[in-house]
Amino acid sequence: MKIVETPDSAYAHINGWRCEGFKVGLVPTMGALHAGHLSLVERSRSECDYTAVSIFVNPTQFGPHEDFSKYPRTLEDDLRQLSNLDVDLVFAPQNTSLYPDGFSCFVGTPKVAQPLEGIHRHDHFAGVTTIVLKLMNIMPANVAYFGMKDYQQLAVIRRMVEDLNVPIQVAGCPTVRESDGLAMSSRNRYLSPEGRQKALCLSKALNFAADAIASGQTAVSEIEASMQKLLVENGADSIDYARIVDPDWLTDISTITGPVVALIAAHVEKTRLIDNRVIELEN
Amino acid sequence: MKIVETPDSAYAHINGWRCEGFKVGLVPTMGALHAGHLSLVERSRSECDYTAVSIFVNPTQFGPHEDFSKYPRTLEDDLRQLSNLDVDLVFAPQNTSLYPDGFSCFVGTPKVAQPLEGIHRHDHFAGVTTIVLKLMNIMPANVAYFGMKDYQQLAVIRRMVEDLNVPIQVAGCPTVRESDGLAMSSRNRYLSPEGRQKALCLSKALNFAADAIASGQTAVSEIEASMQKLLVENGADSIDYARIVDPDWLTDISTITGPVVALIAAHVEKTRLIDNRVIELEN
Repeated sequence: MKIVETPDSAYAHINGWRCEGFKVGLVPTMGALHAGHLSLVERSRSECDYTAVSIFVNPTQFGPHEDFSKYPRTLEDDLRQLSNLDVDLVFAPQNTSLYPDGFSCFVGTPKVAQPLEGIHRHDHFAGVTTIVLKLMNIMPANVAYFGMKDYQQLAVIRRMVEDLNVPIQVAGCPTVRESDGLAMSSRNRYLSPEGRQKALCLSKALNFAADAIASGQTAVSEIEASMQKLLVENGADSIDYARIVDPDWLTDISTITGPVVALIAAHVEKTRLIDNRVIELEN
Repeated sequence: MKIVETPDSAYAHINGWRCEGFKVGLVPTMGALHAGHLSLVERSRSECDYTAVSIFVNPTQFGPHEDFSKYPRTLEDDLRQLSNLDVDLVFAPQNTSLYPDGFSCFVGTPKVAQPLEGIHRHDHFAGVTTIVLKLMNIMPANVAYFGMKDYQQLAVIRRMVEDLNVPIQVAGCPTVRESDGLAMSSRNRYLSPEGRQKALCLSKALNFAADAIASGQTAVSEIEASMQKLLVENGADSIDYARIVDPDWLTDISTITGPVVALIAAHVEKTRLIDNRVIELEN
């Protein structure tokens, strides 16, 4: 497994593989790898000739009062896990090589970035589109793999790639969960044992929404109100949103008539957690 | 000469040449080709194995009261000229294939976009960075050629390419002038015969600045005041700016101590003209 620190070196390796006609998969991560990340790597390994992973805690996607400085950094352990999965290349750059002095050109965001996270984490998605486009240029793979746990992020990246004609295929991969339903997240390690139990309120509320829709409820505002109640009763200290929206554009809907996505962002203890569930109408 | 209309077709041709190991040059244009554009094509022809030209009047870089609708469109004549120069591929897309319904993700601008044109043509450079990045993705050449007549645009594109790690080399090519000094521009054809004479005020003012600096003047504000006077006396109806600034960052300077660039934007009749001259200190 090659470990490279500079953009030029990462580009040379991956462009070299591409020129030889091989299919290359890219898995962009912020490290602190868990089974969710590893499922992306395994998907890439099964579909591509070469798999490259980036590990970079991207400062521009964190707000001024968010957890950039305390975000878990576990590089040695990450590299060991990736090596065990026969990853071909890891790009683990320094901040200054991706954001040198004088850096000032960000990528903007598509409209789908505006609701939900866009309201609660201002400028977050501009940091995401910027780093993802940079990584796609530095690591010009055929396919880039992203987890569906960050549902809106995936939608934002899909639109960015389409609007800016980035020549890469974007693949979304299912959320990996603990056996009790908690979505895997690097931030779960912030939780106390008690908070870890309370954190189940997110998946419980999403399952409630799916059951309500399966049982024929169609009034979105009523289901959302029940989700909020369920979150608070089961351990959420505050709720940023608990919404049911259009699965492609994340726009408001009032009545269920087709597939939707339910999305939640809530604070448990001092940790902000997100989760979502796509809900299809059964026939 | 291949003429293609769709992004997919342009990408397939150029990526194909790249994969075969050939060097490809890209010349992005808005058509209405003149000797300035053709000099870019000739430079690419001399340096690259294949030369691709795009012709697209990019709506997003025009302001609401600017000349998008009347901008000259001379596709048949453009294609004839490019064919005569043995260009390999022309990409001439429709608006809707580059900006389909739902398009919403623009590229931002680097800091060097803020002064001068950035003040007088709000949002202009966001349109430029967006279309240039799109074209660089659709036409993944080794080198992209731009004219130095649009000096600030070239600086903006250089920073965008560097900040976003776009894997392409940016080449700036000298401004081509008429025999009397007028910089070639597709907008020169808006001028009446009388306006065509008045338009020489720009190159005259730039030459004055170069002479003043060569003769030892160092006070930027005094030279700028003289440039403005000279512009008005020689036919400019109004002046957006007539400035002497740092050649790399286009930031203000007060005293000449090294190389500078003088830049002018002025209206002659109803036509907005720009021109510039890099001025080195003689030893």
